[in-house]
Amino acid sequence: MCGIVGVYSDENVAKDVYYSLFSLQHRGQESCGIATLNGRINHHKGMGLVTDVFKEEQLKTLSGNIGIGHVRYSTAGGSHPSNSQPLVGMCRGGKIAIAHNGNLVNSDVLKERLEDDGLIFQTSIDSEVILYLLARYYKGDDIVDAVKRTMSLIKGAYSLAIMTEKELVAVRDPNGFRPLRIGKRGNDYIVASEDSAIDVIGAEIVRDVEPGEIVLIKDGKMESFFYETDYARRSCCIFEHVYFARNDATIDGINAYKFRVETGELLARESFVDADVVVPVPDSGWAGAIGYSKESGIPFMEGLVKNRYVGRTFIKPTQKEREVGVKLKLNPLKEVIKGKRVILVDDSIVRGTTSKQLIESIRKAGAKEVHLRITSPPVKYSCYFGIDTPRRSKLIASSNPVDKICEIIGADSLRFISIDGMRSATHGKLSFCSACFDGDYPIDPMVESI
Amino acid sequence: MCGIVGVYSDENVAKDVYYSLFSLQHRGQESCGIATLNGRINHHKGMGLVTDVFKEEQLKTLSGNIGIGHVRYSTAGGSHPSNSQPLVGMCRGGKIAIAHNGNLVNSDVLKERLEDDGLIFQTSIDSEVILYLLARYYKGDDIVDAVKRTMSLIKGAYSLAIMTEKELVAVRDPNGFRPLRIGKRGNDYIVASEDSAIDVIGAEIVRDVEPGEIVLIKDGKMESFFYETDYARRSCCIFEHVYFARNDATIDGINAYKFRVETGELLARESFVDADVVVPVPDSGWAGAIGYSKESGIPFMEGLVKNRYVGRTFIKPTQKEREVGVKLKLNPLKEVIKGKRVILVDDSIVRGTTSKQLIESIRKAGAKEVHLRITSPPVKYSCYFGIDTPRRSKLIASSNPVDKICEIIGADSLRFISIDGMRSATHGKLSFCSACFDGDYPIDPMVESI
Amino acid sequence: MCGIVGVYSDENVAKDVYYSLFSLQHRGQESCGIATLNGRINHHKGMGLVTDVFKEEQLKTLSGNIGIGHVRYSTAGGSHPSNSQPLVGMCRGGKIAIAHNGNLVNSDVLKERLEDDGLIFQTSIDSEVILYLLARYYKGDDIVDAVKRTMSLIKGAYSLAIMTEKELVAVRDPNGFRPLRIGKRGNDYIVASEDSAIDVIGAEIVRDVEPGEIVLIKDGKMESFFYETDYARRSCCIFEHVYFARNDATIDGINAYKFRVETGELLARESFVDADVVVPVPDSGWAGAIGYSKESGIPFMEGLVKNRYVGRTFIKPTQKEREVGVKLKLNPLKEVIKGKRVILVDDSIVRGTTSKQLIESIRKAGAKEVHLRITSPPVKYSCYFGIDTPRRSKLIASSNPVDKICEIIGADSLRFISIDGMRSATHGKLSFCSACFDGDYPIDPMVESI
Amino acid sequence: MCGIVGVYSDENVAKDVYYSLFSLQHRGQESCGIATLNGRINHHKGMGLVTDVFKEEQLKTLSGNIGIGHVRYSTAGGSHPSNSQPLVGMCRGGKIAIAHNGNLVNSDVLKERLEDDGLIFQTSIDSEVILYLLARYYKGDDIVDAVKRTMSLIKGAYSLAIMTEKELVAVRDPNGFRPLRIGKRGNDYIVASEDSAIDVIGAEIVRDVEPGEIVLIKDGKMESFFYETDYARRSCCIFEHVYFARNDATIDGINAYKFRVETGELLARESFVDADVVVPVPDSGWAGAIGYSKESGIPFMEGLVKNRYVGRTFIKPTQKEREVGVKLKLNPLKEVIKGKRVILVDDSIVRGTTSKQLIESIRKAGAKEVHLRITSPPVKYSCYFGIDTPRRSKLIASSNPVDKICEIIGADSLRFISIDGMRSATHGKLSFCSACFDGDYPIDPMVESI
Repeated sequence: MCGIVGVYSDENVAKDVYYSLFSLQHRGQESCGIATLNGRINHHKGMGLVTDVFKEEQLKTLSGNIGIGHVRYSTAGGSHPSNSQPLVGMCRGGKIAIAHNGNLVNSDVLKERLEDDGLIFQTSIDSEVILYLLARYYKGDDIVDAVKRTMSLIKGAYSLAIMTEKELVAVRDPNGFRPLRIGKRGNDYIVASEDSAIDVIGAEIVRDVEPGEIVLIKDGKMESFFYETDYARRSCCIFEHVYFARNDATIDGINAYKFRVETGELLARESFVDADVVVPVPDSGWAGAIGYSKESGIPFMEGLVKNRYVGRTFIKPTQKEREVGVKLKLNPLKEVIKGKRVILVDDSIVRGTTSKQLIESIRKAGAKEVHLRITSPPVKYSCYFGIDTPRRSKLIASSNPVDKICEIIGADSLRFISIDGMRSATHGKLSFCSACFDGDYPIDPMVESI
Repeated sequence: MCGIVGVYSDENVAKDVYYSLFSLQHRGQESCGIATLNGRINHHKGMGLVTDVFKEEQLKTLSGNIGIGHVRYSTAGGSHPSNSQPLVGMCRGGKIAIAHNGNLVNSDVLKERLEDDGLIFQTSIDSEVILYLLARYYKGDDIVDAVKRTMSLIKGAYSLAIMTEKELVAVRDPNGFRPLRIGKRGNDYIVASEDSAIDVIGAEIVRDVEPGEIVLIKDGKMESFFYETDYARRSCCIFEHVYFARNDATIDGINAYKFRVETGELLARESFVDADVVVPVPDSGWAGAIGYSKESGIPFMEGLVKNRYVGRTFIKPTQKEREVGVKLKLNPLKEVIKGKRVILVDDSIVRGTTSKQLIESIRKAGAKEVHLRITSPPVKYSCYFGIDTPRRSKLIASSNPVDKICEIIGADSLRFISIDGMRSATHGKLSFCSACFDGDYPIDPMVESI
Repeated sequence: MCGIVGVYSDENVAKDVYYSLFSLQHRGQESCGIATLNGRINHHKGMGLVTDVFKEEQLKTLSGNIGIGHVRYSTAGGSHPSNSQPLVGMCRGGKIAIAHNGNLVNSDVLKERLEDDGLIFQTSIDSEVILYLLARYYKGDDIVDAVKRTMSLIKGAYSLAIMTEKELVAVRDPNGFRPLRIGKRGNDYIVASEDSAIDVIGAEIVRDVEPGEIVLIKDGKMESFFYETDYARRSCCIFEHVYFARNDATIDGINAYKFRVETGELLARESFVDADVVVPVPDSGWAGAIGYSKESGIPFMEGLVKNRYVGRTFIKPTQKEREVGVKLKLNPLKEVIKGKRVILVDDSIVRGTTSKQLIESIRKAGAKEVHLRITSPPVKYSCYFGIDTPRRSKLIASSNPVDKICEIIGADSLRFISIDGMRSATHGKLSFCSACFDGDYPIDPMVESI
Repeated sequence: MCGIVGVYSDENVAKDVYYSLFSLQHRGQESCGIATLNGRINHHKGMGLVTDVFKEEQLKTLSGNIGIGHVRYSTAGGSHPSNSQPLVGMCRGGKIAIAHNGNLVNSDVLKERLEDDGLIFQTSIDSEVILYLLARYYKGDDIVDAVKRTMSLIKGAYSLAIMTEKELVAVRDPNGFRPLRIGKRGNDYIVASEDSAIDVIGAEIVRDVEPGEIVLIKDGKMESFFYETDYARRSCCIFEHVYFARNDATIDGINAYKFRVETGELLARESFVDADVVVPVPDSGWAGAIGYSKESGIPFMEGLVKNRYVGRTFIKPTQKEREVGVKLKLNPLKEVIKGKRVILVDDSIVRGTTSKQLIESIRKAGAKEVHLRITSPPVKYSCYFGIDTPRRSKLIASSNPVDKICEIIGADSLRFISIDGMRSATHGKLSFCSACFDGDYPIDPMVESI
């Protein structure tokens, strides 16, 4: 997963982009970068967090009133400096910079074709394919046409912020997999993956970029174009709402926090169990646990204390010290848990290893019963559209029914919300991609040809 | 405030101390250090977080089966590398290392006296006075006697982990201002400021070090001694429970999380107001808001989203961008707040500036009313015992009555819990220091003589 | 200027490349990089010195028995991480990595043409043009053919180390501007810019790569090919001998140290002046001063002491402290200079500012006379083939006759060696490029078409 | 060995101290520090080079018009941040800061005594003893008296820069082991270990601080005092002239460079050998080789090329790559050496390992004969006064006669200068300590009592 932002202003934008990226940091911590336009396009990128890569001196070199930024969470392509974005290239039509969130499913086929034409790839990310296609079609005049031609070739998930030497362009793929929001501040425009990036610089939310929409911001005006397609059905990634986006993100009409609380409520209705206390797995289970508690009437209590400094690189405990590893992150709050029947709420189970360790830890702290409740359905299929799920064989739900998972992780009971239950939390506003739960991929990930 | 830890084992302890310090990181981020005993005492210290100061290679140089550690939050003495702890010194009785949490009130007088004897101070922290007094009385044989003589001279708050070339000693001042807990793991002993540091390395909590107690761990055994005094009354710092300690800390019989939830409940009983939603200031107001919601029946909702990466050093917004500064940390969740009557819950008000900015921000996000509820009484007096409160003149409650504060910060209503209310949350187990609320200092901070 | 190296072995080569680059560090300090082949090509690059960019952990990730390396001294293209080499790209024929020393004169024309074909440039260095042309012609089979086709298009100075997924290739342009040497160690081959890089890993010098030669090292064997051309005349860059190469470099039959001493001798013959002491400008004038002293019989003495730590980034003196700036680097040795008639020897004058400051400084230290002797002719024309000379207008000799320069820099007398004198130090072995002295460019730098 | 500096001015001195330390960097690379007086004394210290430890921001915090500085080369006391200087302490008389070059021989005895009085040592350097004694005797009024009393107790080598809250004091021990020079710039005073530190900031050399002299700089005036003693004989460390000081240092009337050239000449007279070329070991043998060549008439040529970047931390070659290790630093210049009878000149032999490796390397490069000539006598005894010689058993000359050493290192012949020869190069101006050559220690290093 990644986060992108684009700002168009009358003044220098580097600091705006910086603050926006900081607000999107949860979407990617591997690397980050900013490119700005000041007659010519300059950029700075680096491995690590926004606050580490950018200091006053870097921002000073990035003057200009149009800018785009990117935070990267390694998905396709490995962890390597050359894979950081924005990608910047000099082509016939001048310099182009792009920031890409999402994953193409046909990048291999496209790469091969472009290589046959004598092109050369300097990174291992599929975003470079997009840059090359844009370069091929852009002659310095009509960027919208170049984008449309590119869209006719690439398949998959992509939200893009594109900057030429004249304009800012925002693009969302026809399926609308990844979010992209528009904001306005006076005469300035901003596009960004989430509301937080727009709020932080004092801009007002305008709306989502629509699936298939191309937004052109140029000469102080915003224009909208659409790439027409009949194959694509709206299929917003529901994992943005389940886990990925911040609570203050509203995507395609649904606010993430409200969705999370509501799935907690619905889950309580679907699979109530009598207990003494509802405990969230911090921080992912917080909202769901609030909803579960509210609906069930069972009191909410924090029963696991998270170390605020987790995320820092620390010296790994040895295998023997495995217990240390868990407790460094989450320590059971004995006074809350001891002698209690605990309902533990989390947003999802992927591999199941963390759940197993947590339940063990909670039992050791004296819990009488531990019932695990998950506010999303079992994840059975890999994602090819940008969520960094492991391959199927590592997904505990891909080969185990719920009661078997319950046994493996050692819970007294385990329930997931149903897909229909989850859908009802979208109030009919959201046609989402449920491929990770049911394998129904909106685009066939095994593309053979273009 | 600071955090301290001491470990006595049969094996190398550096890694245990490291993990324990990591679990106490919230108690101090300015500097940290570890000293270990392996025939001779070695130590490593540095400015910054535990994860930055210690890497595998530093830990490797710290062999030995007794160790102490310290995380420092600048209180007395400025921010300077030489002020980091443990302090290690070579004296007649061999090397001594100490880690100190707390603040002396008579260190200036003692320093003067020692300087008159020709001593020299290389740091600006009062902990150095303790080291010098210990050195003066310790001749290599009876450390407990040296500690007692030292205790007869120093006044104020001090929890200490002391290491000689033979033993580990833990000390808590006769008032018991600062917490100090004992744990056991097999034959190993650990003393630490909070339970989390004991839990993390797989040890079991044994009990608190008692006010005035000197715990000697030597030759695999633990012995207890007491410094007899009649002047000292038990006066545990209640701010540990209000704010400072982690939720999983139990100090003198009261668990911090339970205390926090209960003060929220009591506050709701004391000063109910009708509203649509109870919103915590993250993370300090979480527990209180849960209690307030439970007692009042008004639903709990997260209405402010905290950026997980705050704490990193970022480029400061200019004065003009002041709003950015607030939103980088806490962004109002409009979908929760808009059109609502909001009860905002926090643990305390010190200067009042953050509260003012937050209320402004929440109103801008569309709140109809904002009622602020604080789970501790107004802070009117400075602390001289280790909490880093500003001088009186900067404390908004030192010169303003509650209704005036309410006006300044722009709330529709403002209520603090009463001291009696807060006291009832201690269930008679805790005789605490309430000086910051009522000026009743357990020790006169204006000491003239020893 | 840059330094390149390529190693072909039966064992891991990363460390060999590392040591070789360290021995070429004087050829470029801006950035460096290594690429190795282990089934696939991996690489690591960074800004700064070899010792800063590469630590054990980086070398560990670079397994493989073929490798190339590069140290960069910013010439064409600015100082930016993306300009570091080796450049690595994925093309139809697999991955290619190149390390380039030199400068093309027709890269702008070629870039335009390639951009018209839809290609995109991600760096601002002309080496990327070479990579793209190789990619265009290389289909995974015949790299020598691809190199020849590329050579038919590019004009200028280039010594190249190229690595495909099968082989190592070394190329030197038909003019032979930049050096490239071949070494052998058992069954291993090494190509490098200078002897020091070959010596350091215990290999024996074999010979130069010839102008226009393509050396293919594959399947344990070395083969030689030539790109036939009639336009190119041998024109080795004489500045390698004058200044750039290390004393232990032998290029096209002439050893740099011996050349330097000999030009000093010839200069003494051409322009003797009576004086008390011959003083070198450290380190560039050392060898010349030894020669001058020997031939003239005037004793050699160090009269300027160089700070060994210059090269480190230090806080710049203010304008007012200008004198500090000079003395930080070179401090006059008063005991040698006071009351003496000094012959100061240096290898070249470019802008003349350093000479002026030095002479001032030497006079202040009490010299009676200062005669400056330069072991190369006046530099009047810019270099387009890789030496980082400033544009003509900044060259003091481009617009001033020798006596005027002498006046500007404040010397009592100033003499340069004649071109013929310098030529005689090559003993007829070297047909060198003298464009910087006489403007006779072996290739017209104002290329209009390909 | 270490370098010290003290500056007294009307303006801020931090930058002066910084540049001076940079010019003394060769005297110590382990750590460095600066303390300045601006009403109160502030300081900053760190491990590493001056240019790494001090950036603009550090210098900004160090305002004040008196300052002292220190560069440390680990001698007594290990490599630990706490051992960096200046040492700063708060005593009865106010803050004191000291920078110390040299080594005490009775620090252990003094430490014990002070510890018996209840003092505590926080570092492992003997300089702390000096600080403690000063603190004991200084009551805020008469620093000269405090210095004298301190001098009556400490034995050994010490040049000191001392700063109180009022004045700057420079002290040189009665033997005058370590150098200390005085300079003047307008109304400003500077004291420093070597001339380079005085020259660099544009000050003029005034004279040496005399053995036993105490220089007080206060209220814009300089006063001189002497500590009277009858036991001490002048015994300047001759190794400053042999190796340690920069060529531009003049100590007690003898310039280091001239001394070095002259010992080369004297050595040629004492032990001429017929050969083709005189080659210096860079950089230590340069001056001696110039002298040897001049006197013998055998031409001087550089035959070993030093890598300018040695000094940087590089990845160590394995045992197998031992040859790499030598060549990384010094590469034989084959064109100079091949087929020649070489006289190799160096300043001293300590362990003999480097000489052995170099001679091997030179033979491999084709030398017909290798004659080693050393411009100091055999080092047979350890130094207790500040030169970091290894213990006697590691000194090759402590247990081997010259012909045996010659055999071990593999030279065709080996000659050292005689002590008398070396003495004649001092022209009767210098009564030096020759203990490392003949064991005649000016102070008995095995002190039993004070």
